[in-house]
Amino acid sequence: MRGFASDNYAGVHPEVLAAMANANVGHARAYGDDPWSADARDAFRAHFGAGAEAFIVFNGTASNVLALEAMTQPWEAVLCADSAHLHADECGAPERAGRKLLTLPTPDGRLTPERLEPLAIRVGDQHAVQPRVVSIAQSSELGTVYSPDATAALADWAHEKGMYLHVDGARLCNAAAALDVSLAALTSDVGVDAVSFGGTKNGLMGAEAVVLLAPDLRTGFQYRRKQSMQLASKMRFLSVQFETLLSTDLWRRSAAHANAMAARLAAAVGELRQVTVTQPVEANAVFAILPRGVSDALTERWPFYVWNEATGEVRWMAAWDTSPDDVDAFVDDMQRLILAKGGPQSIR
Amino acid sequence: MRGFASDNYAGVHPEVLAAMANANVGHARAYGDDPWSADARDAFRAHFGAGAEAFIVFNGTASNVLALEAMTQPWEAVLCADSAHLHADECGAPERAGRKLLTLPTPDGRLTPERLEPLAIRVGDQHAVQPRVVSIAQSSELGTVYSPDATAALADWAHEKGMYLHVDGARLCNAAAALDVSLAALTSDVGVDAVSFGGTKNGLMGAEAVVLLAPDLRTGFQYRRKQSMQLASKMRFLSVQFETLLSTDLWRRSAAHANAMAARLAAAVGELRQVTVTQPVEANAVFAILPRGVSDALTERWPFYVWNEATGEVRWMAAWDTSPDDVDAFVDDMQRLILAKGGPQSIR
Amino acid sequence: MRGFASDNYAGVHPEVLAAMANANVGHARAYGDDPWSADARDAFRAHFGAGAEAFIVFNGTASNVLALEAMTQPWEAVLCADSAHLHADECGAPERAGRKLLTLPTPDGRLTPERLEPLAIRVGDQHAVQPRVVSIAQSSELGTVYSPDATAALADWAHEKGMYLHVDGARLCNAAAALDVSLAALTSDVGVDAVSFGGTKNGLMGAEAVVLLAPDLRTGFQYRRKQSMQLASKMRFLSVQFETLLSTDLWRRSAAHANAMAARLAAAVGELRQVTVTQPVEANAVFAILPRGVSDALTERWPFYVWNEATGEVRWMAAWDTSPDDVDAFVDDMQRLILAKGGPQSIR
Amino acid sequence: MRGFASDNYAGVHPEVLAAMANANVGHARAYGDDPWSADARDAFRAHFGAGAEAFIVFNGTASNVLALEAMTQPWEAVLCADSAHLHADECGAPERAGRKLLTLPTPDGRLTPERLEPLAIRVGDQHAVQPRVVSIAQSSELGTVYSPDATAALADWAHEKGMYLHVDGARLCNAAAALDVSLAALTSDVGVDAVSFGGTKNGLMGAEAVVLLAPDLRTGFQYRRKQSMQLASKMRFLSVQFETLLSTDLWRRSAAHANAMAARLAAAVGELRQVTVTQPVEANAVFAILPRGVSDALTERWPFYVWNEATGEVRWMAAWDTSPDDVDAFVDDMQRLILAKGGPQSIR
Repeated sequence: MRGFASDNYAGVHPEVLAAMANANVGHARAYGDDPWSADARDAFRAHFGAGAEAFIVFNGTASNVLALEAMTQPWEAVLCADSAHLHADECGAPERAGRKLLTLPTPDGRLTPERLEPLAIRVGDQHAVQPRVVSIAQSSELGTVYSPDATAALADWAHEKGMYLHVDGARLCNAAAALDVSLAALTSDVGVDAVSFGGTKNGLMGAEAVVLLAPDLRTGFQYRRKQSMQLASKMRFLSVQFETLLSTDLWRRSAAHANAMAARLAAAVGELRQVTVTQPVEANAVFAILPRGVSDALTERWPFYVWNEATGEVRWMAAWDTSPDDVDAFVDDMQRLILAKGGPQSIR
Repeated sequence: MRGFASDNYAGVHPEVLAAMANANVGHARAYGDDPWSADARDAFRAHFGAGAEAFIVFNGTASNVLALEAMTQPWEAVLCADSAHLHADECGAPERAGRKLLTLPTPDGRLTPERLEPLAIRVGDQHAVQPRVVSIAQSSELGTVYSPDATAALADWAHEKGMYLHVDGARLCNAAAALDVSLAALTSDVGVDAVSFGGTKNGLMGAEAVVLLAPDLRTGFQYRRKQSMQLASKMRFLSVQFETLLSTDLWRRSAAHANAMAARLAAAVGELRQVTVTQPVEANAVFAILPRGVSDALTERWPFYVWNEATGEVRWMAAWDTSPDDVDAFVDDMQRLILAKGGPQSIR
Repeated sequence: MRGFASDNYAGVHPEVLAAMANANVGHARAYGDDPWSADARDAFRAHFGAGAEAFIVFNGTASNVLALEAMTQPWEAVLCADSAHLHADECGAPERAGRKLLTLPTPDGRLTPERLEPLAIRVGDQHAVQPRVVSIAQSSELGTVYSPDATAALADWAHEKGMYLHVDGARLCNAAAALDVSLAALTSDVGVDAVSFGGTKNGLMGAEAVVLLAPDLRTGFQYRRKQSMQLASKMRFLSVQFETLLSTDLWRRSAAHANAMAARLAAAVGELRQVTVTQPVEANAVFAILPRGVSDALTERWPFYVWNEATGEVRWMAAWDTSPDDVDAFVDDMQRLILAKGGPQSIR
Repeated sequence: MRGFASDNYAGVHPEVLAAMANANVGHARAYGDDPWSADARDAFRAHFGAGAEAFIVFNGTASNVLALEAMTQPWEAVLCADSAHLHADECGAPERAGRKLLTLPTPDGRLTPERLEPLAIRVGDQHAVQPRVVSIAQSSELGTVYSPDATAALADWAHEKGMYLHVDGARLCNAAAALDVSLAALTSDVGVDAVSFGGTKNGLMGAEAVVLLAPDLRTGFQYRRKQSMQLASKMRFLSVQFETLLSTDLWRRSAAHANAMAARLAAAVGELRQVTVTQPVEANAVFAILPRGVSDALTERWPFYVWNEATGEVRWMAAWDTSPDDVDAFVDDMQRLILAKGGPQSIR
């Protein structure tokens, strides 16, 4: 199967799989007290700074929830976009952990200090949750990215108010590749306090990490991870994935490729009169509106998601393994379906 | 490194790793909607009966906590041995999920209806948690096993009182191999309501499963798994591990081998005057007391855990990859250390 | 002090206080196993039907949270207005209990099936919380009421979708008095499944009740109350308050009086050119916009709350003990302040 | 009804009820921002020191759970006796709040550093909850008291290990009265970090307080109280109860009376050959074993609790309103029943 449903429909990058096989030698201490895990922690520090402390967990839900728990008391709120994965797609995991989200609509998935200002209220009022964390997704759920300056502005705003800035970095590599900057340039260099760093969507088999940058967040985090059911026994097999991703340029290579495939797709559908691209294509996602009949027929062969049932807007994700041929064949099929339904004038 | 610390110090069985590599082809629907996951669910049904519903999760903590949550309201209690992993080694994960454990001491890690009877009290008293689940570990944390009859007796006792029987089966394969019975003979055939089925300690890279047998437990379990941060996106790589373990005799082969190595070890140390084996060796664990100096020196080369600091009792676990040579070399070293410290008369 | 800040600034109705004193005789079984508590439960049944089961708790936060917990699994969502007390003023208590709220804006605090429809989505999608309860406030936080028909329409809509209808009845008496109907006419007669019934704002010293109407909600509720820290030991002193409120017409008398005082206030300020009443005055609340300087000066003598800092909208609540003289003096002061600041033409 | 079941079967002390009636004048700011609440906070400071911060809550369950939550992270454990109310009679409320208790048996309900030592283990082990609080009940659930020295020894032990000392002071007044010392002598003067201070069992209608002594515990406690559903709106009526109890000697007068009645009862039953007093009678509880038939017949007229079904041990509590006549009549009835069943030789 090939498709544009999600970057987690893709498999494991061959370099990662090979490294996992190489780690399968003899016994190793469990729960992270092994050489591969030490190397992975070093690799995170190489990217995020000497003060960064990384804790590997199983999935993105956990990476987000554990980071936010570490940044808040139960009565403190997380401010995020209403399109945030946290809010929309975690089946209430943050709330199950006892945390309230305060959300706001955005046109493009991006928060700004101006948009946040109306949520930074009722400080000191015991009847209201107290704003404590701003959480942004980088790249955002709508495929847009925050520049280093935009991130710094959010960090400054948050810190002035005694709040933290959290980055849901399920696709942080895509953002850094898109902007051609380092991972630090989008996080540790500009005041981010904690990152939920994604690996799975960028070619790992399954590993995510909470990267704590603000020093006061680390206390007891190892217990939090265990108690929250996120401590792997055979940790070496998670750690080696990150070590492979981060110790060479694999993270950037894979992400840049996915971004390029999204750009190729956006360019190609931009030629089709009946397709409207609805968001800036800045990372590896393309959002578009196309005729419902075309969309329905197309997804039978190429799985993808309808993002908005009301408008018919769909989301196409490119992955590390999306090939130019995949993109071209997908657009060909789309064009054929449009022609079949709309006649020759339906193509520009 | 080689050692006897834990069966989770071992790596991945080559057949499992090969199957994982074979699953790395093209795209697959995420979150369990893929062919490998369907096959794994079928494999569980083949072992546990047509009514069994298996939900794969990341680790044993989750497998236990999610099963127990499904069986209880927050005010309902889980009865278990005070040696239960649940109670002693999960960093309070069951309590973090809002559940109270009522524990009792046992000589050998095994519960019986007689031992449980004093905990089955205060039913209907609103000031007391209400007993709702009996949880046993099979094989137990002390390396002992429950026969099918002993399990049936517990199930009958529990059901008569309106309670469920849960099996923490992190090492269920070892128990079934030891007793030379099927997995069903220890679970679905004798009234067990839910199993936390372990794969990681039996040669998988990292996958556990909640196997729900009582039909009323399934409602909404998929949401519980997601909300509890235990839903893998690239599920195929977890599912294929179980499919490999369960669709051939690999589960029994690996477990029986580990059991045999524990037996070999127990037999060998039984010859040593200064070593006392403290528990029946029924599965893949050996518990023993040996001179502290010997123990300290031995563990530098061969990692293992002190089980009881007060008595100096240690635990030695055999794994799927423990070799006869490992056992023999370990016992040789032990004997040499005993001789060095105690003189010739120290060996029988 | 006199004011219009909240109906919970008022004291205890003399009939209630007298009944509490009368209950202070000898010993009584604790935790609700006393005659006053039995009478209170009967009083609730007399109003809400023979199948109604009432559990008295300490405050409105608990009354709402416990009712909603009884109606949901942790992954099930509560749909409510974004003005809901639940969402805005409980310091995250529902989320601390592990429940997610899905909110929507309303012009007047009232939900309708049409407004709710966009939230009743993603049923069966394991990544999304599952809609399970519609929660309305009666009277609403904006002082509006739901007619029996409007309530029935919501109940029908909810039930068709397998959902429950919950009424936050902190001011249910005010609504029933306003519509001149029975408490049942707004609840049990029209399909409501659970009511959080308020007493404190209607002249009690401090007592609220969860009234469960749907029979399947009762299981284990007594344990839930205890575990949630809401079981009073000297329950007779809470129960006798409700018995006093409900066994005569005191509930309606007090509520109708408060409503009448709000109407008197609304009528009087309606004469003032510079005051705009912003919501229909249907129960005991008046929402208005008046010149900021007037508002600031007025609240120094007569406490009340600014509802919306941005627009300057304020809320005036009338209570069971608000007198016509209070209203008249308040309006006189308001008029004097307007004149002082705006000159004679500022009064119509 | 008169009886010896619990000090919470008693009513409200007349001085307290009168003060509550006096507080029922006009409007008062809600949620604790009223003069009575300020006075109550001052009264707590007068007893517990200028640094003491008191937060009034509804009941003892909450007073204990909120204090312990403030002292712990979710992965930190509370060490207590297995007879602790916390463990045995709160229907799992501490666990519902996510905290694990580690319990140990005691002969008399009292902890000592020596008894605690075996629980202060596994510090730094991520698989184990981390010991963080020692919680003692003063007077204990078995009617014994801790001297100032015994309390200081526990505080020193706890602080050396980086732990807190918590006092469940549901009956702290009884202990202070019994030892003829101040409340501070048992708490703030000897290193106690937080007290759950009981009023209800000592003649209040229903009010308890978390008294925070260690300064680092206060941060955000007001939000914790609200979120945990323990903030009263008409707070004046709770505050005035404590103000009345603490601003005169009423707290000591009532407690000393209850203690004296327990002593009178113990002395009288000490004369009965068939009654064995099983615990030191140091406060207001008497534990005894008497013939089962006598016990069963006696409790029909005088309610009390069987403490231990296995041994037939019963508990008799004296309250602020227990009269000498109550005690004498109770013992007379007991003697008559013993005679009726055992003949003249059954009385010494």
